[in-house]
Amino acid sequence: MIDPLPRLPNVGADERLRRQMDFLVEMDHLKTILRAVFIEGGTRRENDAEHSWHVALMASTLAEYSDRKIDVDRVVRMLLVHDLVEIDAGDVMIYDEAARREQHALELVAAERIFNLLPADQAAELRGLWDEFEALESAESLYAKALDRLQPLLLNCLSRGTVWREHGVTAAQVRRINSSIADASPRLWDFASGLIDDAVTRGWLPE
Amino acid sequence: MIDPLPRLPNVGADERLRRQMDFLVEMDHLKTILRAVFIEGGTRRENDAEHSWHVALMASTLAEYSDRKIDVDRVVRMLLVHDLVEIDAGDVMIYDEAARREQHALELVAAERIFNLLPADQAAELRGLWDEFEALESAESLYAKALDRLQPLLLNCLSRGTVWREHGVTAAQVRRINSSIADASPRLWDFASGLIDDAVTRGWLPE
Repeated sequence: MIDPLPRLPNVGADERLRRQMDFLVEMDHLKTILRAVFIEGGTRRENDAEHSWHVALMASTLAEYSDRKIDVDRVVRMLLVHDLVEIDAGDVMIYDEAARREQHALELVAAERIFNLLPADQAAELRGLWDEFEALESAESLYAKALDRLQPLLLNCLSRGTVWREHGVTAAQVRRINSSIADASPRLWDFASGLIDDAVTRGWLPE
Repeated sequence: MIDPLPRLPNVGADERLRRQMDFLVEMDHLKTILRAVFIEGGTRRENDAEHSWHVALMASTLAEYSDRKIDVDRVVRMLLVHDLVEIDAGDVMIYDEAARREQHALELVAAERIFNLLPADQAAELRGLWDEFEALESAESLYAKALDRLQPLLLNCLSRGTVWREHGVTAAQVRRINSSIADASPRLWDFASGLIDDAVTRGWLPE
């Protein structure tokens, strides 16, 4: 059993580099925050770090389907940090609507602590990206949020709706909560709707 | 136990979207490719998807230390796909130098299959990013490679050199293999060298 160091040894870096390194080491914790969905193969649940990578890869691959003109690189930067607050606040399943209402307050406290681990200029930049993602006003944030919804939908289909069945989720809930995909991309929403209809037909999602 | 679907159901998307979705689903497999290093807390080894996310986050956080002018967004795009070939070729530990010599041939075969899952224009774009990363000629690829070396070095320090000790790695090997960090960033190499010296002092790495 490893008894890990709590932080990197002090090797004489200046304050700025030290803070950046401590931030990067602390962000490693995102790999331990588990989500409801299963990875391919159904062997285990996904964690937030993997999810962040996957959805960032989706952003560039599917960029042509955004209904608005977007800066894809900004979307990628947003998605790489969109779940960092869950290091403190934890992940709440999107269909647990009661818990989600309380979650935002927890995430605001988490954002204050986590982004401020960085030097002030970088803290402001990352906080700006996260606030933009949460506000859902810019074209980039609408597209990023659509992918953040689409990615678990794909994985839930692959695992034959296991997570939906575990939580008694209905097709009406899945359509309503994922309809933000339509705001960003009618084309991707067509695809997602097809998957939801298919899941109903297969008996994974009651209407 | 889940008996997952091997691919998404056919819900009538056109050939292009279908290929993009099949690619994105197949890339989920990166989450199952394990690396030698341990994540924070030492509870388990890291996988390639988490690593790709972490190193992409490092790219933006540490961009100011690149010795050359770089397009950070291009570095991020490169790092998001730099390990996709390991879905077929597997991960080889950087200190296993014999295996690494054979690895490149396996990765070339993997690149042919994996990038060509995508429509031709996107296959060419991702293959271009991967070839650039491997060639180590552009400023972006030198910086990306430096981070790809630095990230496991940080994690190996946090786990008290467990991976180095498991494989009988010496400080001279760690200095030689990680010296590519110096090519991209003397400042980050200073930091890395400090960590290596510290590991020697603590008895984790024999000279």
